[in-house]
Parts: sequence; structure tokens; C-alpha cells
Amino acid sequence: MAYDDNNIFARILRNEAACIKVYEDDATLAIMDVMPQSEGHVLVLPKESAEFIDELSPQAGAAAMVTVQKVASAVKKALAPEGLLIAQFNGAAAGQTVPHVHFHIIPRRAGEALRPHAREMAELAQLEALAARIRAVL
Amino acid sequence: MAYDDNNIFARILRNEAACIKVYEDDATLAIMDVMPQSEGHVLVLPKESAEFIDELSPQAGAAAMVTVQKVASAVKKALAPEGLLIAQFNGAAAGQTVPHVHFHIIPRRAGEALRPHAREMAELAQLEALAARIRAVL
Repeated sequence: MAYDDNNIFARILRNEAACIKVYEDDATLAIMDVMPQSEGHVLVLPKESAEFIDELSPQAGAAAMVTVQKVASAVKKALAPEGLLIAQFNGAAAGQTVPHVHFHIIPRRAGEALRPHAREMAELAQLEALAARIRAVL
Repeated sequence: MAYDDNNIFARILRNEAACIKVYEDDATLAIMDVMPQSEGHVLVLPKESAEFIDELSPQAGAAAMVTVQKVASAVKKALAPEGLLIAQFNGAAAGQTVPHVHFHIIPRRAGEALRPHAREMAELAQLEALAARIRAVL
């Protein structure tokens, strides 16, 4: 299937839609997930247009992983979760809801179940405060 | 915590323990998960010793992602699952069971629930047959 240029992440990457930014470099953008599965849920988007991980160039994949590592480290420092889940969904059968490759960085805390994926909007002010704490240690 | 040199993946990387190999290069090894969550579940191990993703060097992280992309593409070609989940667990609270960074590549099929993580051994002959199909398109 051809890449859909109007998906929400493509629009965020073109500055046509708003986001709460955590980190940006030439190849990647990290933003707060507005429907977080736990407190501090961040998304890493490669800027290259691709729907699935195997369609991404090796360069873009490598750059995405370096940003995932950077942001994972910052989330640990800023929020001190007990664990960190990195997840990347390809296809609806795997839970993908936006057709642009993205990596989830999801803090895990003992005894705390994950909230459902892409279901409930968080308070933007609360997300902005979390993003500020993560950015401060990046 | 210091890296535990005797974990099963460290031993596999030193050829002290057996594995069903899918792919190998200078920086990474891909093997069948012997307790698969679905048919065709592959693990990608960076050869660098690290417990968590943020402890891995950027070079090792980038190399791991390039191998994840390669193997993901081969799993799709060989097994044609409807979706593909990439997951990487840091810390027991996130589901990590072996203290060496690893990436799960898990085929997803519509209406098929994942089997529990790290629970039940698969038939080795069946895993070997799946690995052969994946290797054939790599």
C-alpha cells in the first residue's frame, strides 16, 4: 500500500498539526503520546516517510534507534520508572493505529497495568509538564 | 547493577550454549525464541554486553536496528503474517527475563492472541524448520 501523506504523524512532521515535543534532530522527532498507556509515554518518529519498519531505510532505522536510546535514558533519569517497554507495531493485526513507523517508549511500574493503546486523551498541561521534565535531562 | 556474564544470551554469544541461528553479522545475532509467543518469533541480540537499551552504545543500537529491519523483512516474506510486533523489555517490571538487551520480532495474525512470554518450550524441529524458511529469504 502507498504511504498515506495525510496521517497525523506526517502532518506533525510538516508542522501542520500540533505536538508536545521532547526531542528533535535531522532524522527523528520525539513527542509525547497524547493517549498514553502510562505516565511518560513518548513516541519516536523517523522523519522518513514509511509505514512499516522494513520499509524504512537502514540509515533512518539506525537514527531512530539512537534517538530511542537517548530518550529512553532521559525518561529513566527524569521519571525513574521501574521498567521501560519499547514497542513498535506493524500492521493493524499488531496494533498499529497510525500508518507512519513509530516507536513507543512506555514507562512500566510494578503492579501497574498499561492503559489501552490509542484510547483516552490525557490532559495536555500534564503532558507538557512531563515533557519538560524529560527535556531537562536530555 | 553490573552486567551478568553468565546469562543465557551471553553464553549463546560465546558459543557455550546452543541456539537456532537465523542471521549473524559482526555486531548482532538473530535466533529463534525457544519459547515463542507466536509462530516465527525471532530474537535479535546485540553482541555488545549490556542489560538495558540505554546502556548500549549508539553504534550497537544502530546495528541492532538494522538487523531487526532485515529480519523483520525476511519474516514477512517467509511467513506472511498479517502484522509484526517489535518489542524490547527493560527491567522485570517491563517483562525482561534475560539480562542482556534483546529485541523480539513477533508475527501477529488476526484473531490470534500472543502466547505468554518465556513460558513454554516449542519443538526444536519445528523451530529449525521455521528458521530455515526465514534464512532462505535473507
